[in-house]
Amino acid sequence: MSHRTRKSRGSAAERELVHKFWDAGWAAFRAPASGAMPIQIPDVIAGHGNRKLGIEIKLTKESKKYFTKQEVEDLQGFCARFGSECWLGVKFLRKGWFFLSPEDMRQTASSYVVSYEEAQKKGLSFEELIDSIV
Amino acid sequence: MSHRTRKSRGSAAERELVHKFWDAGWAAFRAPASGAMPIQIPDVIAGHGNRKLGIEIKLTKESKKYFTKQEVEDLQGFCARFGSECWLGVKFLRKGWFFLSPEDMRQTASSYVVSYEEAQKKGLSFEELIDSIV
Repeated sequence: MSHRTRKSRGSAAERELVHKFWDAGWAAFRAPASGAMPIQIPDVIAGHGNRKLGIEIKLTKESKKYFTKQEVEDLQGFCARFGSECWLGVKFLRKGWFFLSPEDMRQTASSYVVSYEEAQKKGLSFEELIDSIV
Repeated sequence: MSHRTRKSRGSAAERELVHKFWDAGWAAFRAPASGAMPIQIPDVIAGHGNRKLGIEIKLTKESKKYFTKQEVEDLQGFCARFGSECWLGVKFLRKGWFFLSPEDMRQTASSYVVSYEEAQKKGLSFEELIDSIV
Protein backbone atom coordinates (compact mmCIF):
# COMPACT_ATOMS: atom_id res chain seq x y z
CA MET A 1 0.00 0.00 0.00
CA SER A 2 1.44 3.42 -0.88
CA HIS A 3 2.10 6.00 1.83
CA ARG A 4 -0.64 8.15 0.33
CA THR A 5 -3.17 5.31 0.42
CA ARG A 6 -2.25 4.43 4.02
CA LYS A 7 -2.60 8.05 5.05
CA SER A 8 -5.98 8.55 3.40
CA ARG A 9 -7.28 5.29 4.89
CA GLY A 10 -6.11 6.47 8.29
CA SER A 11 -7.98 9.76 7.79
CA ALA A 12 -11.09 7.86 6.72
CA ALA A 13 -10.91 5.76 9.91
CA GLU A 14 -10.61 8.96 11.99
CA ARG A 15 -13.63 10.47 10.24
CA GLU A 16 -15.60 7.27 10.74
CA LEU A 17 -14.88 7.31 14.46
CA VAL A 18 -15.78 11.00 14.75
CA HIS A 19 -19.16 10.27 13.17
CA LYS A 20 -19.78 7.36 15.54
CA PHE A 21 -19.36 9.78 18.44
CA TRP A 22 -21.75 12.36 16.94
CA ASP A 23 -24.31 9.64 16.24
CA ALA A 24 -24.06 8.60 19.89
CA GLY A 25 -24.80 12.15 21.12
CA TRP A 26 -21.20 13.13 21.85
CA ALA A 27 -19.16 15.95 20.27
CA ALA A 28 -15.91 14.89 18.61
CA PHE A 29 -13.40 16.17 16.10
CA ARG A 30 -10.11 15.26 14.44
CA ALA A 31 -6.92 16.96 15.59
CA PRO A 32 -6.23 20.33 14.08
CA ALA A 33 -3.01 20.74 12.12
CA SER A 34 -0.71 20.96 15.12
CA GLY A 35 1.22 23.99 13.89
CA ALA A 36 3.57 25.13 16.61
CA MET A 37 1.90 23.31 19.50
CA PRO A 38 4.28 22.25 22.29
CA ILE A 39 2.66 18.78 22.34
CA GLN A 40 1.11 16.75 19.53
CA ILE A 41 -2.71 16.86 19.66
CA PRO A 42 -4.39 13.40 19.68
CA ASP A 43 -5.93 12.13 16.43
CA VAL A 44 -9.45 12.42 17.84
CA ILE A 45 -10.85 14.30 20.84
CA ALA A 46 -14.35 13.48 22.05
CA GLY A 47 -16.47 14.79 24.89
CA HIS A 48 -19.84 14.38 26.56
CA GLY A 49 -20.92 15.52 30.00
CA ASN A 50 -17.97 15.12 32.36
CA ARG A 51 -16.05 12.73 30.12
CA LYS A 52 -13.34 13.83 27.69
CA LEU A 53 -11.31 11.37 25.63
CA GLY A 54 -8.01 11.85 23.81
CA ILE A 55 -7.58 9.03 21.30
CA GLU A 56 -4.62 8.04 19.15
CA ILE A 57 -5.77 5.93 16.23
CA LYS A 58 -4.32 3.20 14.03
CA LEU A 59 -5.84 1.20 11.24
CA THR A 60 -4.39 -2.19 10.28
CA LYS A 61 -5.06 -5.12 8.01
CA GLU A 62 -2.47 -7.16 9.93
CA SER A 63 -3.11 -9.24 13.05
CA LYS A 64 -1.29 -6.84 15.36
CA LYS A 65 -0.53 -3.16 15.57
CA TYR A 66 2.26 -1.05 17.09
CA PHE A 67 2.28 2.41 18.63
CA THR A 68 5.71 3.94 19.20
CA LYS A 69 6.61 4.89 22.77
CA GLN A 70 6.86 8.49 21.56
CA GLU A 71 3.27 8.41 20.28
CA VAL A 72 2.01 7.05 23.59
CA GLU A 73 4.06 9.52 25.64
CA ASP A 74 2.78 12.43 23.55
CA LEU A 75 -0.79 11.22 24.06
CA GLN A 76 -0.29 10.84 27.81
CA GLY A 77 1.35 14.25 28.03
CA PHE A 78 -1.51 15.95 26.24
CA CYS A 79 -4.22 14.14 28.21
CA ALA A 80 -2.56 14.95 31.54
CA ARG A 81 -2.53 18.66 30.66
CA PHE A 82 -5.93 18.83 29.02
CA GLY A 83 -7.58 16.75 31.69
CA SER A 84 -8.90 13.82 29.68
CA GLU A 85 -8.87 10.06 29.53
CA CYS A 86 -6.17 8.55 27.38
CA TRP A 87 -7.07 5.86 24.82
CA LEU A 88 -5.46 3.97 21.96
CA GLY A 89 -7.93 3.00 19.25
CA VAL A 90 -7.18 0.25 16.75
CA LYS A 91 -9.38 -0.59 13.81
CA PHE A 92 -8.63 -4.08 12.53
CA LEU A 93 -9.85 -4.05 8.94
CA ARG A 94 -13.03 -6.12 8.45
CA LYS A 95 -13.02 -6.88 12.21
CA GLY A 96 -13.81 -3.59 13.90
CA TRP A 97 -12.69 -1.13 16.53
CA PHE A 98 -11.01 -1.83 19.88
CA PHE A 99 -10.03 0.75 22.50
CA LEU A 100 -7.27 0.15 25.03
CA SER A 101 -5.51 2.05 27.79
CA PRO A 102 -1.74 2.23 27.35
CA GLU A 103 -1.46 0.03 30.48
CA ASP A 104 -3.40 -2.70 28.71
CA MET A 105 -0.93 -2.86 25.83
CA ARG A 106 2.11 -5.11 25.75
CA GLN A 107 5.39 -3.15 25.81
CA THR A 108 8.46 -3.91 23.74
CA ALA A 109 11.74 -2.00 23.86
CA SER A 110 10.49 0.79 21.61
CA SER A 111 6.76 0.38 21.27
CA TYR A 112 3.38 -0.66 22.56
CA VAL A 113 1.77 -3.53 20.71
CA VAL A 114 -1.59 -5.24 20.65
CA SER A 115 -2.66 -8.31 18.70
CA TYR A 116 -6.20 -8.93 17.54
CA GLU A 117 -6.54 -11.70 20.15
CA GLU A 118 -5.33 -9.40 22.94
CA ALA A 119 -7.62 -6.62 21.71
CA GLN A 120 -10.59 -8.98 21.95
CA LYS A 121 -9.68 -9.86 25.54
CA LYS A 122 -8.61 -6.49 26.92
CA GLY A 123 -10.06 -3.90 24.56
CA LEU A 124 -13.40 -2.12 24.73
CA SER A 125 -15.82 -1.91 21.83
CA PHE A 126 -17.02 1.56 20.84
CA GLU A 127 -20.26 1.01 22.78
CA GLU A 128 -18.31 -0.10 25.86
CA LEU A 129 -15.99 2.90 25.52
CA ILE A 130 -18.80 5.44 25.61
CA ASP A 131 -20.62 3.60 28.39
CA SER A 132 -17.58 2.94 30.55
CA ILE A 133 -17.40 4.48 34.00
CA VAL A 134 -13.88 5.68 34.65
CA MET B 1 -8.74 46.36 5.93
CA SER B 2 -8.96 43.62 3.30
CA HIS B 3 -10.77 40.38 4.02
CA ARG B 4 -7.43 38.55 3.84
CA THR B 5 -5.80 40.91 6.34
CA ARG B 6 -8.75 40.64 8.73
CA LYS B 7 -8.67 36.88 8.50
CA SER B 8 -4.95 36.57 9.14
CA ARG B 9 -5.14 38.99 12.08
CA GLY B 10 -7.97 36.86 13.48
CA SER B 11 -5.83 33.74 13.15
CA ALA B 12 -2.93 35.51 14.83
CA ALA B 13 -5.21 36.42 17.75
CA GLU B 14 -6.32 32.77 18.05
CA ARG B 15 -2.70 31.58 18.05
CA GLU B 16 -1.79 34.21 20.65
CA LEU B 17 -4.58 33.01 22.94
CA VAL B 18 -3.62 29.35 22.47
CA HIS B 19 -0.07 30.17 23.55
CA LYS B 20 -1.30 32.03 26.63
CA PHE B 21 -3.10 28.85 27.70
CA TRP B 22 -0.01 26.66 27.17
CA ASP B 23 2.13 29.16 29.08
CA ALA B 24 -0.37 28.94 31.95
CA GLY B 25 -0.11 25.13 32.11
CA TRP B 26 -3.29 24.38 30.17
CA ALA B 27 -3.66 22.51 26.86
CA ALA B 28 -5.37 24.43 24.07
CA PHE B 29 -5.72 24.35 20.31
CA ARG B 30 -7.45 26.13 17.45
CA ALA B 31 -10.47 24.53 15.83
CA PRO B 32 -9.74 21.95 13.18
CA ALA B 33 -11.11 22.57 9.70
CA SER B 34 -14.68 21.62 10.45
CA GLY B 35 -15.14 19.43 7.39
CA ALA B 36 -18.49 17.74 7.60
CA MET B 37 -19.10 18.28 11.32
CA PRO B 38 -22.77 18.62 12.28
CA ILE B 39 -21.93 21.66 14.44
CA GLN B 40 -19.26 24.33 13.97
CA ILE B 41 -16.27 23.75 16.30
CA PRO B 42 -15.34 26.78 18.48
CA ASP B 43 -12.32 28.87 17.45
CA VAL B 44 -10.33 27.73 20.48
CA ILE B 45 -10.79 24.81 22.88
CA ALA B 46 -8.82 24.79 26.13
CA GLY B 47 -8.69 22.38 29.03
CA HIS B 48 -7.04 21.82 32.40
CA GLY B 49 -8.12 19.48 35.18
CA ASN B 50 -11.89 19.41 35.27
CA ARG B 51 -12.37 22.61 33.28
CA LYS B 52 -12.94 22.70 29.53
CA LEU B 53 -13.61 25.92 27.63
CA GLY B 54 -15.10 26.44 24.17
CA ILE B 55 -14.26 29.98 23.03
CA GLU B 56 -15.45 31.94 20.01
CA ILE B 57 -13.03 34.76 19.27
CA LYS B 58 -13.19 38.21 17.71
CA LEU B 59 -10.54 40.85 17.24
CA THR B 60 -11.50 44.50 16.80
CA LYS B 61 -9.95 47.92 16.53
CA GLU B 62 -13.39 49.50 17.06
CA SER B 63 -14.97 50.33 20.42
CA LYS B 64 -17.53 47.52 20.22
CA LYS B 65 -17.84 44.09 18.70
CA TYR B 66 -20.73 41.94 17.44
CA PHE B 67 -21.25 38.18 17.41
CA THR B 68 -24.13 36.96 15.27
CA LYS B 69 -26.89 34.99 17.01
CA GLN B 70 -25.95 32.06 14.78
CA GLU B 71 -22.34 32.14 16.02
CA VAL B 72 -23.48 32.17 19.64
CA GLU B 73 -26.05 29.41 19.09
CA ASP B 74 -23.44 27.25 17.35
CA LEU B 75 -21.05 27.79 20.27
CA GLN B 76 -23.72 26.95 22.84
CA GLY B 77 -24.79 23.89 20.88
CA PHE B 78 -21.25 22.56 20.71
CA CYS B 79 -20.47 23.28 24.36
CA ALA B 80 -23.68 21.60 25.54
CA ARG B 81 -22.76 18.43 23.64
CA PHE B 82 -19.06 18.42 24.41
CA GLY B 83 -19.58 19.29 28.06
CA SER B 84 -17.67 22.55 28.35
CA GLU B 85 -18.03 26.13 29.48
CA CYS B 86 -19.07 28.56 26.78
CA TRP B 87 -17.12 31.82 26.35
CA LEU B 88 -16.91 34.74 23.92
CA GLY B 89 -13.45 36.26 23.73
CA VAL B 90 -12.88 39.75 22.37
CA LYS B 91 -9.46 41.26 21.82
CA PHE B 92 -9.69 45.04 21.60
CA LEU B 93 -6.56 46.06 19.69
CA ARG B 94 -3.98 47.77 21.92
CA LYS B 95 -6.31 47.25 24.92
CA GLY B 96 -6.34 43.53 25.54
CA TRP B 97 -8.51 40.47 25.97
CA PHE B 98 -11.91 40.20 27.65
CA PHE B 99 -13.97 37.02 28.12
CA LEU B 100 -17.74 37.07 28.51
CA SER B 101 -20.57 34.59 28.87
CA PRO B 102 -23.28 34.98 26.23
CA GLU B 103 -25.62 36.02 29.09
CA ASP B 104 -23.31 38.95 29.87
CA MET B 105 -23.61 40.34 26.33
CA ARG B 106 -26.22 42.83 25.20
CA GLN B 107 -28.66 41.35 22.66
CA THR B 108 -29.93 43.10 19.57
CA ALA B 109 -32.41 41.65 17.05
CA SER B 110 -29.76 39.66 15.22
CA SER B 111 -26.63 39.72 17.35
CA TYR B 112 -24.83 39.86 20.66
CA VAL B 113 -22.78 42.99 21.21
CA VAL B 114 -20.26 44.22 23.75
CA SER B 115 -18.59 47.63 23.97
CA TYR B 116 -15.15 48.20 25.45
CA GLU B 117 -16.76 49.87 28.47
CA GLU B 118 -19.12 46.93 29.02
CA ALA B 119 -16.25 44.47 28.56
CA GLN B 120 -14.28 46.25 31.29
CA LYS B 121 -17.25 45.99 33.68
CA LYS B 122 -18.54 42.50 32.93
CA GLY B 123 -15.69 40.69 31.18
CA LEU B 124 -12.94 38.59 32.71
CA SER B 125 -9.27 39.08 31.95
CA PHE B 126 -7.33 36.01 30.81
CA GLU B 127 -5.99 35.52 34.33
CA GLU B 128 -9.48 35.74 35.79
CA LEU B 129 -10.78 33.33 33.16
CA ILE B 130 -8.30 30.60 34.04
CA ASP B 131 -8.70 31.17 37.80
CA SER B 132 -12.49 31.41 37.77
CA ILE B 133 -14.50 28.81 39.67
CA VAL B 134 -17.54 27.92 37.64
